[in-house]
Amino acid sequence: MEKLHSLYNFLDVAGTFAFAISGATAARQRNLDLFGICAIAFVVACGGGITRDLCIGAIPPTGLTTWYYLATAMTAAAMTVGFYSVVQRMNRPVILFDAIGLSLFAVTGAQKALAYGHNGEVAVLLGITTAVGGGVLRDVLLNRVPVILEREIYASAALIGALFVVAGNYLKWMPNDWISVIGLLTCFTLRMLALRYRWNLPGSSENKTGPDK
Amino acid sequence: MEKLHSLYNFLDVAGTFAFAISGATAARQRNLDLFGICAIAFVVACGGGITRDLCIGAIPPTGLTTWYYLATAMTAAAMTVGFYSVVQRMNRPVILFDAIGLSLFAVTGAQKALAYGHNGEVAVLLGITTAVGGGVLRDVLLNRVPVILEREIYASAALIGALFVVAGNYLKWMPNDWISVIGLLTCFTLRMLALRYRWNLPGSSENKTGPDK
Amino acid sequence: MEKLHSLYNFLDVAGTFAFAISGATAARQRNLDLFGICAIAFVVACGGGITRDLCIGAIPPTGLTTWYYLATAMTAAAMTVGFYSVVQRMNRPVILFDAIGLSLFAVTGAQKALAYGHNGEVAVLLGITTAVGGGVLRDVLLNRVPVILEREIYASAALIGALFVVAGNYLKWMPNDWISVIGLLTCFTLRMLALRYRWNLPGSSENKTGPDK
Repeated sequence: MEKLHSLYNFLDVAGTFAFAISGATAARQRNLDLFGICAIAFVVACGGGITRDLCIGAIPPTGLTTWYYLATAMTAAAMTVGFYSVVQRMNRPVILFDAIGLSLFAVTGAQKALAYGHNGEVAVLLGITTAVGGGVLRDVLLNRVPVILEREIYASAALIGALFVVAGNYLKWMPNDWISVIGLLTCFTLRMLALRYRWNLPGSSENKTGPDK
Repeated sequence: MEKLHSLYNFLDVAGTFAFAISGATAARQRNLDLFGICAIAFVVACGGGITRDLCIGAIPPTGLTTWYYLATAMTAAAMTVGFYSVVQRMNRPVILFDAIGLSLFAVTGAQKALAYGHNGEVAVLLGITTAVGGGVLRDVLLNRVPVILEREIYASAALIGALFVVAGNYLKWMPNDWISVIGLLTCFTLRMLALRYRWNLPGSSENKTGPDK
Repeated sequence: MEKLHSLYNFLDVAGTFAFAISGATAARQRNLDLFGICAIAFVVACGGGITRDLCIGAIPPTGLTTWYYLATAMTAAAMTVGFYSVVQRMNRPVILFDAIGLSLFAVTGAQKALAYGHNGEVAVLLGITTAVGGGVLRDVLLNRVPVILEREIYASAALIGALFVVAGNYLKWMPNDWISVIGLLTCFTLRMLALRYRWNLPGSSENKTGPDK
């Protein structure tokens, strides 16, 4: 159990890091200054969770109170500014961690909404919001149409993951922890399959399957 | 009384549907994918009410908990994707229902803020927010300046409707139900008159008076 | 004490006015209609504080309940519409009041978060949000990348001010009122120094150091 908790924490930080890297990279490409890069990194990492917490009444939002989310986002921003070539070479792991973050946030977002006593519809909608809200805010701030609204399999994977969690909770198939793990793996597999099939399309893959949520 | 309630429910769903159609149509024109079209349809239909509920402390927001709002928005999105020619031919009723939605949401938004014990300023500001917030979010997500900030008579009609409700509540002219009905009719009449006078301007009318809130 | 309170109220209104002027001016330049100009003026003046209040659970947000914020924003909007040449000649005091607003809102935002019992991280993040949130919303609504994410010393000054307040509160250097005053002066001095050094860059200064937050 202790080990499971450590694994969860590692995945949580890894996902947050990947999200923040995607924000910092996009901000750097738009020539934002240091503050702007840090702000966008933080918004991508925590924006979805903050929106969810406002909607379920978890005040103040965890994204604002937890020091290691902020620290992770600032580390990602600092690396993007100082060691950009390293960040670029981290493309593969970042895509992997990004899919992990997507899956984990969709599942934990839905679970948290249920834990606060809200119904299944709220849980599914806020599971998706947790997973993709930060990326939507990033694109709104960088003045472009959110990528996830133009590509189907990113947010849809989060939807499947959140739906699985909610269905599992209502039908009580198995202990909640197992439901979460299977929901997470389902979403992750879907996302990775989507990425792999796009790898078959040469040329566009580099741009379109990068860590932009 | 039973009948009045049924009428209210019908108008509520009709307004939500018109709002969602405007979102789905705009998303389709920007070539968003299926998820994007559903998301924008839902945001236009429920975004204003969710913002209002966050501000008055109605947690979780009704827009997230009520299944028929989601179902209405998804129906509108599905029709826009599958039967686009039908949706285009529905232009007239959609404009009508859109004006109904505007009026109804302005009035019920103001009433709900008052019912939660907030003052008249909050009620007027959140009445407008309920009516036009979804449309503003749609335009922000689709990366353009909100139409309602460029055209005067859409949000202004909502303002008049909400003001009427608040004034009526403070001055106790008549029972609250009547105040709501008259506020709704005032807003609706204003909007329809504004539309009719623009019909006198040929050419620009089709684009400018369509169901984009 | 009475005098200090009057001074505080004066600065509060002056800062709000400068923020609203920046919003109304930007909206006018984008050819928004009267409603749009009033809406953007109000959003710049109150948007940051409303976001903060949602995050700390101060429901309804002060920005929605306090009549003189709305009145100040509407006055600024009316002046921008009716007496644009006067507003343009007010460039200097507006820049000054804008820096005052920035400093005051950063400090009071952080203080309010602490007063609601939240931790230092929340207070710093929401101090910045209070100070620059309205300007970010303005730029999002006007469909451009927020200026404050591209220029370093505006939001950074707010960060320093908020950090000072939080550090002072934890370390109990002196009474809270003094900490606020010194935090405010630090932020204000930083901002004015930043502006003065940019004045050395002829040509770009007029555009880049104007009251756009």
